[in-house]
Amino acid sequence: MLLRVKLTDDFYLGPGKADLLELIAETGSIGAAGKRMEMSYKRAWSLVQVMNAAFPAPLVETTRGGSGQGGAVVTPLGQKVLTHYRTMQRKTEAAIADDITALLVDMSGKK
Amino acid sequence: MLLRVKLTDDFYLGPGKADLLELIAETGSIGAAGKRMEMSYKRAWSLVQVMNAAFPAPLVETTRGGSGQGGAVVTPLGQKVLTHYRTMQRKTEAAIADDITALLVDMSGKK
Repeated sequence: MLLRVKLTDDFYLGPGKADLLELIAETGSIGAAGKRMEMSYKRAWSLVQVMNAAFPAPLVETTRGGSGQGGAVVTPLGQKVLTHYRTMQRKTEAAIADDITALLVDMSGKK
Repeated sequence: MLLRVKLTDDFYLGPGKADLLELIAETGSIGAAGKRMEMSYKRAWSLVQVMNAAFPAPLVETTRGGSGQGGAVVTPLGQKVLTHYRTMQRKTEAAIADDITALLVDMSGKK
């Protein structure tokens, strides 16, 4: 089940942004997170910029480590947004379960 | 809100197929329905084939009129599938309304 939610005319929250947030939290890196999704660094960075611009405070903050390699953290606001998305997925799955069952019965041809 | 439901490994039901069914029922023509969606006849026809193949009976039946121009009707099974999709959309909207409200508050920066 794929759920994409339109929050403003030009900001949608869907599985791509949610997975990216989750993987940034896990890996501490935008590049590593993007790589896991087979997404270019440019694309991952661009999605982070879009998310950060949509909220009054960033969802992902970048830092520069001593070695010059940047890290990234998901802020509490970012975690909150991610949690809302996962909650919406769970609620949607529960809400549509009966219709999916009925459709699968229709597809199987059984009464 | 965009909802796409995976029913089998290679059959998804989403807004495109649902809107196409609805417009075929309305216009009585696959071509006219596709045109309203700015979709080529080939693409609309292909989506109908995919839908018909996924169920044990067709969701859309085509007929040839006296003038040689083909018409199309959505079968009772097709109407049932469309109704399930619209019902899932409504249920999803209701299920996620509180999370969307919370996200919009976060986006506005207000407490």
